[in-house]
Amino acid sequence: MSVLTRPILEINLNNIVKNYELLQQIAPKSIAAAVVKDDAYGLGAVKVAEKLYKDARCRCFFVAHGIEGELIRPVVGESQIFVLQGIGEDSLESFQKARLTPVIASPQQFEFWKKHKIDGIKPAIQIETGLNRLGFREKDIAKLSAKEKQEFDVVLSHLACGDEKDHFMNEHQLLRFNELKNKYFPNHRASLSASDGTFLGEKFQKDIVRLGAAMYGINTAPYRENQMLPCVTVKAPVLEVADLAKGEFVGYSVTYRAASNRKIAIVSIGYGDGVPRSLSNVGKVFFADKKANHEARIIGRVSMDNIICDVTDIKVGVGDLAVVIGDFYTLDDIGRDAGTIGYEIVSRIGKNPRFVRNYIG
Amino acid sequence: MSVLTRPILEINLNNIVKNYELLQQIAPKSIAAAVVKDDAYGLGAVKVAEKLYKDARCRCFFVAHGIEGELIRPVVGESQIFVLQGIGEDSLESFQKARLTPVIASPQQFEFWKKHKIDGIKPAIQIETGLNRLGFREKDIAKLSAKEKQEFDVVLSHLACGDEKDHFMNEHQLLRFNELKNKYFPNHRASLSASDGTFLGEKFQKDIVRLGAAMYGINTAPYRENQMLPCVTVKAPVLEVADLAKGEFVGYSVTYRAASNRKIAIVSIGYGDGVPRSLSNVGKVFFADKKANHEARIIGRVSMDNIICDVTDIKVGVGDLAVVIGDFYTLDDIGRDAGTIGYEIVSRIGKNPRFVRNYIG
Repeated sequence: MSVLTRPILEINLNNIVKNYELLQQIAPKSIAAAVVKDDAYGLGAVKVAEKLYKDARCRCFFVAHGIEGELIRPVVGESQIFVLQGIGEDSLESFQKARLTPVIASPQQFEFWKKHKIDGIKPAIQIETGLNRLGFREKDIAKLSAKEKQEFDVVLSHLACGDEKDHFMNEHQLLRFNELKNKYFPNHRASLSASDGTFLGEKFQKDIVRLGAAMYGINTAPYRENQMLPCVTVKAPVLEVADLAKGEFVGYSVTYRAASNRKIAIVSIGYGDGVPRSLSNVGKVFFADKKANHEARIIGRVSMDNIICDVTDIKVGVGDLAVVIGDFYTLDDIGRDAGTIGYEIVSRIGKNPRFVRNYIG
Repeated sequence: MSVLTRPILEINLNNIVKNYELLQQIAPKSIAAAVVKDDAYGLGAVKVAEKLYKDARCRCFFVAHGIEGELIRPVVGESQIFVLQGIGEDSLESFQKARLTPVIASPQQFEFWKKHKIDGIKPAIQIETGLNRLGFREKDIAKLSAKEKQEFDVVLSHLACGDEKDHFMNEHQLLRFNELKNKYFPNHRASLSASDGTFLGEKFQKDIVRLGAAMYGINTAPYRENQMLPCVTVKAPVLEVADLAKGEFVGYSVTYRAASNRKIAIVSIGYGDGVPRSLSNVGKVFFADKKANHEARIIGRVSMDNIICDVTDIKVGVGDLAVVIGDFYTLDDIGRDAGTIGYEIVSRIGKNPRFVRNYIG
């Protein structure tokens, strides 16, 4: 028996590389760029970028913020680092220090860029094609002079429904993208798709595909079985096992009451560690033995540091590790059970320093 | 006009001190301990602990994990630092280095402690009184010898429904706590209440109250108006303002469609920064001018780095700051709108390094 207190986050860098390589095979004519924004979705941008640079020869990265680009610059050599939120006064220093490439998102950012150009850097321009998020609208593109348009290297847009194979928006956005590109930027490189769009076939792949979620094991093409390898395992130790008598309550605001005598395990992980509170009375963890992964339901409210699990029919002791996320209960599974998506889960999980963090590879 | 890209987190340390002092007045006979677990609910444990140590003469702190205690030790002198998740193999080094006081949560942890005692440290014992979370059950307390019981300094338990003034569980747990304490630990110091219990009056306050959520401005006594000062402000810059034509869609999976011509602002904050995705089409932000705080609804899905807001009737430009959390839209407000509680919001918000972080005080 071990007496343990800390949750454990295992990140399989080898599988991230394998996923990256598989995605590159799916889009063989495109540059496969790695999206490591939001600290590589919480998994550690420096570790992930370094691994992809060394083992997968990735030479093109996307982050959201200048500060994120600055953090990975030391491990990616002269790779191109695009910054999706663009450039501003509060990020200029990062761009200069780390020679980052802004994805210019608005006319105002372009005016800012013209005053603060960085030698040898040609920015990308984001154009709006139907998501109605960031990007130049046509009326603003039309105002650019021929010379201004030549300032840009890449034309970029983003799909709204790339994870739904037959959604009308995909074809709609592709047509719009092609129309705007041919009209205004015929000689520029193009990037339309993130992971989900990459699975929609060659016409969506263009010159650069931006690989994030799928690389981290999330199923971005949920209309078919996931081809990606899981990269994230989260475990947490049992601090205590106790009896719960019929009629007793569990947790804050007594949202669970035992209808029969039960056995419970108090597990050392909570919403402070990124386990959504919406899993209260809904979520589950697993205890593995040689035979099976035994499912233990979360009962009562998820609290900041702990969850309480029903282990009535499971052999569990203090120090045993509950699997919160694993190969057989993935980011997609816990996301669905929590009423959200795997992206939000992984982004949260990776951010608490009290995890014991193990990198494989 | 400023061109900005990064979200901003302002933490008012002066208000944290004022809240701490007000809570101390509410429990004048008790030691007011500051709970700075989970990186002070995401607000920065080192900054918060240092401020409370220096300006409020706080000399007693609670964290959840050994590693968290180790981080604050350099700024709190010889203060006592209790560790609520207790002690184990994976935290022993932190306890030794930083001279932390474990809150022993189970017989197995006590066995571990007996093998790894730290000179001069007398642990607390957590006892279970109805929450059915961590703590010795009576059958385990009864097995302790008189000498073993004398190893402990403090007897600690935790309320399930302290935020509901007249909930039967409060009286039930108080009676149970007093019964167990009088029977097994008559001469020990006692701690029963966190912020919420502190408001339930003197009989709940005992020797040590553990002040967390209320100190950070959360209303832990929601049956009456909040007396606490807000300590957290979150703002994010507008990256772009654009027209949205009648019939157009917004965001991933096109969950919003404009029924009339609208004006939208794309704001640089998303679930990667801790804004819950459950605020999709439900949440709101505010734009302040001299006259008022103008409410702008979040439309479409919250994405990882951005939200899209309806600013049809509001004067908004690029670089203006949207207030996501502020004095007039508090942690409690956003928590309610997101279908959760302020605790979960603040714990998430504080964890992304891409925030510009400003401390007041």
